[in-house]
Amino acid sequence: MTALSRSWLQLNNDQRTALAAKLRQSFTQLTSNRLSLDLTRGKPAASQLTLANGLDHQIDGDYTSREGTDVRNYGGLRGIIEARELGREIMDVPATNILIAGNSSLWLMHLTLETALRHGLWAGATPWQQSGQASGSVSLITPVPGYDRHFSLTDSHGIGMRNVGLHDDGPDMADVRKLIASDASIKGIWCVPKYANPTGCIYSDQVVREIAELPKVAAAKDFVVLWDNAYAVHDLVFPPPRLASLFEAAAKAGTQRHMVQFGSTSKITFAGAGISFVGSDESVLKRLEERISLITVGFDKLNQLRHARFLGGRVEAHMQQHAAILKPKFDLVVRKLEEDLGGLGIATWTEPKGGYFVSLDVLPGLAKKIVALAKETGLALTAAGATFPYGRDPEDRNIRIAPTFAETDALEAAMDVLTLCVCLASLDKLNAA
Amino acid sequence: MTALSRSWLQLNNDQRTALAAKLRQSFTQLTSNRLSLDLTRGKPAASQLTLANGLDHQIDGDYTSREGTDVRNYGGLRGIIEARELGREIMDVPATNILIAGNSSLWLMHLTLETALRHGLWAGATPWQQSGQASGSVSLITPVPGYDRHFSLTDSHGIGMRNVGLHDDGPDMADVRKLIASDASIKGIWCVPKYANPTGCIYSDQVVREIAELPKVAAAKDFVVLWDNAYAVHDLVFPPPRLASLFEAAAKAGTQRHMVQFGSTSKITFAGAGISFVGSDESVLKRLEERISLITVGFDKLNQLRHARFLGGRVEAHMQQHAAILKPKFDLVVRKLEEDLGGLGIATWTEPKGGYFVSLDVLPGLAKKIVALAKETGLALTAAGATFPYGRDPEDRNIRIAPTFAETDALEAAMDVLTLCVCLASLDKLNAA
Repeated sequence: MTALSRSWLQLNNDQRTALAAKLRQSFTQLTSNRLSLDLTRGKPAASQLTLANGLDHQIDGDYTSREGTDVRNYGGLRGIIEARELGREIMDVPATNILIAGNSSLWLMHLTLETALRHGLWAGATPWQQSGQASGSVSLITPVPGYDRHFSLTDSHGIGMRNVGLHDDGPDMADVRKLIASDASIKGIWCVPKYANPTGCIYSDQVVREIAELPKVAAAKDFVVLWDNAYAVHDLVFPPPRLASLFEAAAKAGTQRHMVQFGSTSKITFAGAGISFVGSDESVLKRLEERISLITVGFDKLNQLRHARFLGGRVEAHMQQHAAILKPKFDLVVRKLEEDLGGLGIATWTEPKGGYFVSLDVLPGLAKKIVALAKETGLALTAAGATFPYGRDPEDRNIRIAPTFAETDALEAAMDVLTLCVCLASLDKLNAA
Repeated sequence: MTALSRSWLQLNNDQRTALAAKLRQSFTQLTSNRLSLDLTRGKPAASQLTLANGLDHQIDGDYTSREGTDVRNYGGLRGIIEARELGREIMDVPATNILIAGNSSLWLMHLTLETALRHGLWAGATPWQQSGQASGSVSLITPVPGYDRHFSLTDSHGIGMRNVGLHDDGPDMADVRKLIASDASIKGIWCVPKYANPTGCIYSDQVVREIAELPKVAAAKDFVVLWDNAYAVHDLVFPPPRLASLFEAAAKAGTQRHMVQFGSTSKITFAGAGISFVGSDESVLKRLEERISLITVGFDKLNQLRHARFLGGRVEAHMQQHAAILKPKFDLVVRKLEEDLGGLGIATWTEPKGGYFVSLDVLPGLAKKIVALAKETGLALTAAGATFPYGRDPEDRNIRIAPTFAETDALEAAMDVLTLCVCLASLDKLNAA
């Protein structure tokens, strides 16, 4: 498929009809090919996982942590010190302010929400659900587009969501402040501050400072920043872009108790068999630890020790190996978008310097249709709307592209299909207008 | 210390006073020795953990499960098939009825309680908390003495506890039936059916059958049996005593949906780095899986694979190695109790054929005092009352002895102190009577 170099909005209907006929031929041929392509999977390729196979050789009979703990036995809810130091290297939070859990940072987010909602996030704090809102319901700010699992988790707790726009430098802070200043039922904000899912944007230093100040602006005195730094070190370029330290900004603002940061090694070592981190003020960690002590005897310290020994002090070097595999894939996606859709006026997309996604915005009202068209050919795309709470993209225009798992050939074939579907749907819309 | 061979209840006060004076001398000497002994720790000794060091050599570059899953990556909430088959070997539940989680079966119990309470344990079921009890509160049957973490977990959910006695063959079933037949707010029962914590009793075949029938007797139509088979294979004698299959009994009774069974490898391989199992009807597993899918992307399948390869088909052989370490410790505890307290009429104790505890019952009103006396010498005992809900032993007589973690010499010294404290406190009480 070759693209015209000028905007399709300037073509007349006859020109677009002729073009559509030609593209439809390609599409018909594609559907008869019964492809099996998949751009939904935000997970590492096997070659990336192999980079961490060395994990399995770290123990070698030595089960003793630096502080003398036998990591095979029960106990130690905070995690062993060398793993907390690894957390510092990844999350830019002091080791003493980190608690380590199992293989899922999402679970730590769940724990944090549940604790804040039902028990209070600090000793003596009123739980959100009893904080005297007339409706009995509370909500969180959700910058959109965003991460679908944040939304489903929030909803599963009966917590509402208030969307604000996500710009290239972070959430629309004026909107955020306006919402939270007057409404005490808004109890927090979700943030993916570096390589946000799905846009790949990095919050600016200014935005990080402003976020650290939010608890002083919020009507809710128990406002919490949920800082999911899932892609903290998942850079494609080196030296990597640097995210300002929320921990330091909050220390300056005196709002440390209101910041809860999350991270994990899921996309650093093994996606399903890593360790997860929560970083916060001691008052919060203590509270979480109390809750944890009721529901488990402790997390897998053996895996903590493996990770600390394998990754400690060499996280960036390890991530460069990931980048060597991933950057060509991201480059391919952006090149295909540029080649096939560039200048046509029918789509915009992000060019992330890290993370796991490229975000594609098509003409309003077309995302669902394009995902359906792609499905006809055998290309699976993330459900349109998935990047918005309740799966509802108000403009029906955002499509999330996950390039990491596919092999290069399949990725190129998938991008051919995707851009063809975008073109077809866009021509139909423009002609119908 | 040597014991008289006849009951102290038959001695006169003068005899007892003379005896007490002698024992008090020993006690005073002990306190000046500043011992550091501990019988609280229900965890494996290092030598037991070492039996499982082979776990670390199971992967050796081969990360593919039998069904072709790359266990390093995300996905697969039910667990890999070979680990579920290991679950069958341990729990006596079909592999298709097993879901595998992280390193903590307690967490699975938490998930089950939370699901039943807030969401309903089956699709379309009314959550316990909305089941129309006048008080809004529900409760569970707690056989006592029992496992302190069951109690604290239950209480943390705001669920009440109704005690029934635990006999040598299981809970007092007549009492259980009487309570649940008339009170729909009683939603379930906690069971540790084999080597119950702390008494070590094994539920009889008859009791297992009767427990499978309970949902048909209960006023609550959403009654659940919480079957924590924590010591399913933790035998000290071979061939081991066999627990009747609850799964089969429930299949006969048609109550499978009401049985939720738990197990783990915590005291088989590494206490803090094992895998956990929940076994139930498909309707329950599906529901738990729905909940799990909201809060994690999946559990550590790599550790599942390690465990399946290391233990599959040889669980009993492995547990015999544990028994070789543990049986001498249990024998020592029982021998010391017999030597020092036998025939005195001041204490009774259990002689378990497996599990992790020996349960000691002293004269009513003395458990707290004895634990306090022991503490003066430097011997830590599990808090008196810990084996009862809210830490309240109504007769103040049960003391849990955990012999596994201590080395033999320390265990013997600790038992000397313990029986001395029992004797002293008992003499005081008898003399005061």
